[in-house]
Parts: sequence; C-alpha cells; structure tokens
Amino acid sequence: MNNFNFYSPTEFVFGKDRENDCGEYVKKYGGTKVLLVYGGGSAVKSGLIGRVEESLKNNGIGFSELGGVQPNPRDTLVYKGIDMCRAEGLDFILAVGGGSPIDTAKAIAIGVPYDGDFWDFYSGQARPEKAVPVATVLTIAAAGSEGSPDSVITKTDGMLKRGCGTDLIRPKFSVLDPALTQTLPAYQTACGATDIMAHVFERYFTNTKEVEITDRLCEAVLMTMIKETPRVIADPDNYDARANIMWAGMVAHNNIVGVGREQDWNSHGIEHELSALYDCAHGAGLAVIMPAWMEFVYKHDVMRFAQAAVRIWGVKMNFADPAVTALEGIHRFRMFLRSIGMPINFEELGAKEEDIPALVEKFGIGDGETGGFVHLKAADIAEIYRIAVRAEL
Amino acid sequence: MNNFNFYSPTEFVFGKDRENDCGEYVKKYGGTKVLLVYGGGSAVKSGLIGRVEESLKNNGIGFSELGGVQPNPRDTLVYKGIDMCRAEGLDFILAVGGGSPIDTAKAIAIGVPYDGDFWDFYSGQARPEKAVPVATVLTIAAAGSEGSPDSVITKTDGMLKRGCGTDLIRPKFSVLDPALTQTLPAYQTACGATDIMAHVFERYFTNTKEVEITDRLCEAVLMTMIKETPRVIADPDNYDARANIMWAGMVAHNNIVGVGREQDWNSHGIEHELSALYDCAHGAGLAVIMPAWMEFVYKHDVMRFAQAAVRIWGVKMNFADPAVTALEGIHRFRMFLRSIGMPINFEELGAKEEDIPALVEKFGIGDGETGGFVHLKAADIAEIYRIAVRAEL
Repeated sequence: MNNFNFYSPTEFVFGKDRENDCGEYVKKYGGTKVLLVYGGGSAVKSGLIGRVEESLKNNGIGFSELGGVQPNPRDTLVYKGIDMCRAEGLDFILAVGGGSPIDTAKAIAIGVPYDGDFWDFYSGQARPEKAVPVATVLTIAAAGSEGSPDSVITKTDGMLKRGCGTDLIRPKFSVLDPALTQTLPAYQTACGATDIMAHVFERYFTNTKEVEITDRLCEAVLMTMIKETPRVIADPDNYDARANIMWAGMVAHNNIVGVGREQDWNSHGIEHELSALYDCAHGAGLAVIMPAWMEFVYKHDVMRFAQAAVRIWGVKMNFADPAVTALEGIHRFRMFLRSIGMPINFEELGAKEEDIPALVEKFGIGDGETGGFVHLKAADIAEIYRIAVRAEL
Repeated sequence: MNNFNFYSPTEFVFGKDRENDCGEYVKKYGGTKVLLVYGGGSAVKSGLIGRVEESLKNNGIGFSELGGVQPNPRDTLVYKGIDMCRAEGLDFILAVGGGSPIDTAKAIAIGVPYDGDFWDFYSGQARPEKAVPVATVLTIAAAGSEGSPDSVITKTDGMLKRGCGTDLIRPKFSVLDPALTQTLPAYQTACGATDIMAHVFERYFTNTKEVEITDRLCEAVLMTMIKETPRVIADPDNYDARANIMWAGMVAHNNIVGVGREQDWNSHGIEHELSALYDCAHGAGLAVIMPAWMEFVYKHDVMRFAQAAVRIWGVKMNFADPAVTALEGIHRFRMFLRSIGMPINFEELGAKEEDIPALVEKFGIGDGETGGFVHLKAADIAEIYRIAVRAEL
C-alpha cells in the first residue's frame, strides 16, 4: 500500500426531507448571503428550489439565483457566477442538483478569490489557494461531486472538458435525500449508476500490490450497484434502493475506497471527449468506453480482471485459463449495462467512427502517455474508440 | 435505510514515517502548546516519543508530557491532564498510542472547558458543548478511536467503565503509520484485530431493512481482517498486511459502514464488565463474549446470520435448514479467534463463573433492557456469560 492522506470533512445530511434543513446548515457553516446554483426547470417545477429558499429565509439567509446550468457545464455560467459573488458580496455557494450545478459551484468558489482566469485551475496553469465555501443539495446519484474534491468544466471555446481537484472545494455539507431522485427518468438513473460504477473501476484496476481493504471496499460498492440499480429501473419509487445507490455514489468517489493505490482514470478522459463533442450523458459515454478500455488492457493483469469477474460478477474461476474468466467479467459488465438501458457501442450512443481522429486529437496527449494502470498512447486511445465502435453482446 | 448524519472531518495521514510530520499538522490545526498523552515505556523506548517531540520542536510548538496511561484507562489521569491544560494554558492535545491514550486525551479535551466533573459526560448527566482540539499518532490498530467520536474511561471508584460520544472529540488529524504496529506482540495484535471485527459485527446485526451498501461495506472489512490477521500473526513485520489492518480498523469505526441502521453494541457493554473487573484486554474479552452473544441471539434473525456465514466466512448455504448455516458461521468465527491466539471461554480469559452475578449487577440495567438488535434483560446477559463459560470448539 502507498502512503496517502485522506480528508473528507463534508457533513452528509442524509434522508427523506432533509433539504428542508439546509438553511440551518448554511448558518452552521458561516454563510450569510448565498449564491444558489441550479440546473434546468425540474428543480424549480418540483418545488425543490422553493423549499430550499424557504429554508434559507427561515434562517435569515439572503440569496441570489444562478439557474440554467446545463449537463457538461460550461465556463460561461462560471464567469457569470463569479461576477455575481463579487458584485453582491455573496459568501457561500449552494448547488442544488447533480454533478453539473455542483461542479459549476465549485469552479465559482475557487474563481471568486482568484485574480486571474478561473480556467487556469483547469488547464493546470495555477493551483487554487482559497475558496468560498460550497455546499450541495444532491438530486442525482452519479458524479460523486457531493463528497469529492473534484470539478469538471467544459470551455466553450474549443469544447475542452477539463477537471480540477482540491480539498478547498470539498463541500461543507451535502444534503442527500434519496426521494429527490425518484422523479429521475430511467435513462438518467442508469447513466448515474454507470458513472458510480466507473468511479470504482477507475480505482480498482491498479498496479499497487497488497491493497485488500480497498479492493474489498470497491467490490462492496459494485455489488451494491449490481443489486440495486435494476430495482430502481423497474420501480423508480423504490426509496430504499435509491438510498443504497445514493450512499454508494458518495462512497465511490470521496476516495475512501481508493486511497493508497495508483489509480487509472483513462476511461474518464477518453469518455470526456465523447460528451464534449456529442453532448451525450457522461454515464452513457462511460458505458461505451469503459468495457472497451477493459478489453484493451486486461492482458496487463489477467489475474486482477479474473478477481473482479469472480468476486464482483460471480463468475466461476477458470483455473486452466484465467483469461477466459477475465473476459467473462467484462462481458457480464456489458450485459449489465445493456440490461439497465445503456448504450454499449458508438452507434447506440450516437457517436461516429469517422470522428475518431478528431477525438484523439482533442484528447491532446500528442506523443505522450496517460493513465495509471496502463500507460496509453494516442494510437491506443484510437484503438479503444474502435473497440467501442464494434462492441456487441 | 434510516435517516442519518455522517461527519468524519479527521485528516488521516497514512504511511511509513508520517509521524515525523506531526508538528506540521499540529500547526496546521492551530495548536501552539501541546499536551502529549501516551502510555507505557514502549513508545519512549522505541524512540517514537522522541521523534514526535522533535517534530513539534521543529515547528516551534511547545509541549508538556502526560505519560503512563494504562490499558482500560482511568479517570485519575484524565483529572491530571485537565489540571495540566488549565494550569499551563495548553491548547492542543496529542495522543500517541492506542485507544487508551486516545480516549484519555478525548476525555481531557471535553473536561478542560467544562465547569463540572468530566465524568458527567460519561455518566450521561451532561452533554459536552466545547472541546480542546485533539489529534493522534496511532500505534495499535484496534479501538478505531483515531477516527471515531467515542471515548471509553473507567472510573476508579467502583471500576465503572463508561463511554461518551460527540463529534467534538473527533481528531483533527490522525497519523497512521503501519510500521509502528510491527513491534506489537502477537497477542496484542490479535486483540486489536478482534476489536476491529467486533466494531463491524455490532453494526452488522441490525433490524433495519434494505441496507445493502453498509452490509457489503461491513463484509469488506471483515473479509480483509480474515485474510490479513493470520499473516501478521505469522509475520509481525509484514508491513502491507499491517497497513490493510490499520485502514480497516479506521473504516470499521468511523461509522461509514454503520450509518442509516440501528446498531446493537451489547457485546461491547457485556465485555466492558469483564475488562473492568479482570483488567483483561478488551479484544480478548470480546473474543469470549461476541460469539456467545451470537449464539444467544441468532434465532432472532436466522437469515441475517446465514448471510454473514455465507458472505463473510464462505459457508455453503443450507437451504433446507438455514439455522445450520447461521451456526456454522459462528463456529467459524470462534475457530478463527482460536487460530489467532484468542481465548474463547471464561477459563482461557481468566474469568470466573461465580463472578457472573456481580458482572450482571455492575452492568447495571436493573429491570431494564439494552441493545439495538435484540433487547436483553439482566437474565439474558447472565445467560450470555454462562454460554461464554462453557464455549468450546
């Protein structure tokens, strides 16, 4: 196991109707004037935004609104939020929604006290040193942004999708009410579940030896997702299944299951180019890319893929030929993704084979290499896209 | 799943030689004059205390020492530490050692700003409202106190062992260096492992339905302990096995595997009377009590015990008679405990059957009931002690 620091200071406020307490928690964490960041109309129509505002008012907290955050959130709204905070002296940012409003809120949080362009943090040209406090009311179990130090933003100029990570933007508190996810359409629910599973797999496939505790914790989250996801697809109102998924989504990405090991993260990078170009859902893109990545890299450590197949998917070990077991695990993953309504190839996603050179170009590694488990070059990434083109069950 | 709050703001500083950074972290969390709390001579002889002091000095931090904390730590040193903090204006408490110095440090932390007797918090007569910040350098993977809000202290007058829990005493940071545990004798290592497993089982056996994610996380920790503990008993210098156990010990007790469910905790209460009366190791007492408790209560939910047997211990499910499976799981637990050198009955622990009435009396529930999974009365507790008297493989 490698040395590490683990720091997850977010207070998680979990359960039915807990969003009605958010004013109290803003107060507890020192907010007096809030920038409320949210997405499309559903949070407004459902009455959620109204209830959050009511809770703020009841606690004497002022607020301004920044609605309209889109999936694959853009830099444009980040600039707008930074301006609002500066102009109005807002001292706390509360995101209501999924990963997009949350990641937007986090970007605003580090942008406000920074003299330069906030994009410097995403292009890697600067490191954040200060942040306005951020908190969340989560409405989609997916991105894990409610408990993570990460934010992903798309720069409109060039459609570049890039991430930034710093403990400064770990939320002060996150309200996780599983009931808020019950109105999500099946497709979005499945996209979220896929994202959660991908967060675990990105950590699971590692070259670090002797990491039994985090292996087992990763497997725990994945087995939970395999059990609970089909239940919510079949019955969207299943509160308990929603609750298990929601807590799994946090655990998957606050890094408690990933500490002390090298992680990979190539599938996320390779997917980001798809959602940036086609504006598809991140989870749907991962459903297409992640098994393709697995097929491309599994020979690097057949026994680790066999372990995943046996422990997570319940495949019987083929002791004569562990590669058969490893491949069966990947096949089960694709079957699972299909069963919950996810695309498994380019055509089903709406992506085009002829765009592969452009996707690889945008990925932007030139002659370099990327990834923690298997180092990939540009040609390898092209091949993974090609595997994803022709993937079938 | 039940509603819950989860808040674990401790920064974990994990890995080889990380104790040399502790001065830096004291500074980061605002300490200027430290009360250093530790146990017997081994931390001094090994040079650990010297290195911690060196790190404090290098960061310009003053300190006073309170050594000599014994296992099953007493109130007497707590009073002494409170007096020292007040007299010398110490503003930070750093525990170096296992659960005993850490729990002592936590008791001092809430005692210092309190006008009354700190024991009020342990007798349940008052709730803490303020605390001096606490941090830890852990040398034994066992109590989980490095990441928990709990402290257990024994009142010398009457040998009453009682606990107190509040987020105020969650450590600001905890240094977890697995190498520091390599010098632990096999018996203490096994006691620690037993304590870790007990922390999970106390959470695992619950009446709360639909808690798949926390079930799986609990099982992950237990399977890790089953794999790694025999390795460190066989080879005390196995750093990686020590590392897996050390992180498992934190995960087992910061409550991430126990949120959203009713928990039991009777085995801990029943054991506390043994270690208070005989001054035996808490883990050894748990090895005797926990399987006895399981035998007494398993009929309350045979399928949950069968699930534990199948998922954790790898027992084959007996579909015709799940109780057979359930009992086989308990048997495997006892075999495991014996294999790592733990006592499994009163005689091996040095406890006496004739003391049972006194133990039950001290437990002090009178005509009341206790426990989250199965409510026990005094007569039930006596029966569990009797099962523990006659336990064999």
